[in-house]
Amino acid sequence: MEKEIIEWIYEAGDKIRKALKEDTLQVDHKSGRTDIVTNVDKDIQNFLVDKIKSFDPKAKILGEENGQDTTSIDQGRVFVIDPIDGTLNFVYQKENFCIMIAVYEEGIGRLGFIYDVMRDDLFWGGPKVNAVYHNEKELKAPKNKTLEEGLLGVGMPVYTNNYHHTKDIGVRTMGVRVLGCAGLDFIAILKGTQIGYLSSLSPWDYAAGKVMMEQIEMPTCGADFQPLNFSGREFFIGLTSAAMNQAKEYKD
Amino acid sequence: MEKEIIEWIYEAGDKIRKALKEDTLQVDHKSGRTDIVTNVDKDIQNFLVDKIKSFDPKAKILGEENGQDTTSIDQGRVFVIDPIDGTLNFVYQKENFCIMIAVYEEGIGRLGFIYDVMRDDLFWGGPKVNAVYHNEKELKAPKNKTLEEGLLGVGMPVYTNNYHHTKDIGVRTMGVRVLGCAGLDFIAILKGTQIGYLSSLSPWDYAAGKVMMEQIEMPTCGADFQPLNFSGREFFIGLTSAAMNQAKEYKD
Repeated sequence: MEKEIIEWIYEAGDKIRKALKEDTLQVDHKSGRTDIVTNVDKDIQNFLVDKIKSFDPKAKILGEENGQDTTSIDQGRVFVIDPIDGTLNFVYQKENFCIMIAVYEEGIGRLGFIYDVMRDDLFWGGPKVNAVYHNEKELKAPKNKTLEEGLLGVGMPVYTNNYHHTKDIGVRTMGVRVLGCAGLDFIAILKGTQIGYLSSLSPWDYAAGKVMMEQIEMPTCGADFQPLNFSGREFFIGLTSAAMNQAKEYKD
Repeated sequence: MEKEIIEWIYEAGDKIRKALKEDTLQVDHKSGRTDIVTNVDKDIQNFLVDKIKSFDPKAKILGEENGQDTTSIDQGRVFVIDPIDGTLNFVYQKENFCIMIAVYEEGIGRLGFIYDVMRDDLFWGGPKVNAVYHNEKELKAPKNKTLEEGLLGVGMPVYTNNYHHTKDIGVRTMGVRVLGCAGLDFIAILKGTQIGYLSSLSPWDYAAGKVMMEQIEMPTCGADFQPLNFSGREFFIGLTSAAMNQAKEYKD
């Protein structure tokens, strides 16, 4: 299965880079002024949905675009897909965005894939392959750093509002970063250049990252340190084990 | 002069990449827990100071490290240098940091250089060469976008405290980003992927960016839209002309 998914991702990446080069982006608004989607997000989602349906007609799909956002994670095989994570970066920076795919079976994460499209850099893995890979190379789990020993990725709204103590936790780190792309935050965590990520996310924003983080023994959870529920936007915490233990001091 | 400076920058870049590869970083603290400096910052500052002194023994130097932080910008030729801008990124990410050099004569910016070391990407120019270059290619000035038409780089403390209306201005944009490296914010502005940058900065953080922004008719200023004063940390605003006109609505 993982071989096929990697092929789809590389093919999708080619399509996206071609669309950027040919400058064929059309931007539409969804729920508000800064909640945008492009024809490319929709095309790539359709491309991935077609591939998934050919590969496994029984699989369900939970995805950001085209109304596929209400599938339950709990039963059967579910592909969780974000065709372009970081759409604002995609439109305004033409870089710093990712394709993300995760495979869950009976609610359990089996595989995650995060592809930084413009850097042509793929992180993938999970229990199905019992490892996380950076392109072809097996990833070594980063050092189990405390809050005081690293940088933290945050979503700006949860930080400025100190939502679930995000700011209290953030000020204990060496510094916070706002990248505008969950996938890049997860990549930074996997590489060991960030100790974690706190933000308000939808299932397709965290599904792949969660699988890979947990594969290398970095815990993830939702608000109040409860399990993530994979339905709608929710508070997300992903940290090294040491930092997670410290964060729990801020339990409401 | 610009040819020599570019040679120094590439040589300094080689030294920094070598130090990272050989893992010879030693971290010291300056004013506080997150205000750090490494042996590499100091070595590169000394390297640049030696080069400047050989090239122009009469020139003055305004720099972040080694106590060279009190030179006045107003008289004679002054080299403003930041050997490693984004030291926290340098230490924790091993990427996303810059070398920055600016040349001012009688208080007037003549040349600016920002080098993204790990991407080997140089932006340089100013009145002395009557252009801004991205490596060898002359840069085309980005579109004069409004606040509503782009992303904005901010420093986290000025944003969370709404210092000089940073947050009021930020929420009018398409989104804010926190990169932890002024040089990368200036590069994003020059490339047109950000409409501006608001932060609390020291002269060596903004000297090079200011020269290049103004060369392509993007205004910069300090608090209350007054001229920057090049002494100590101060509030910095750099925006497209259109966005600067909008920001002035928030004059205290």
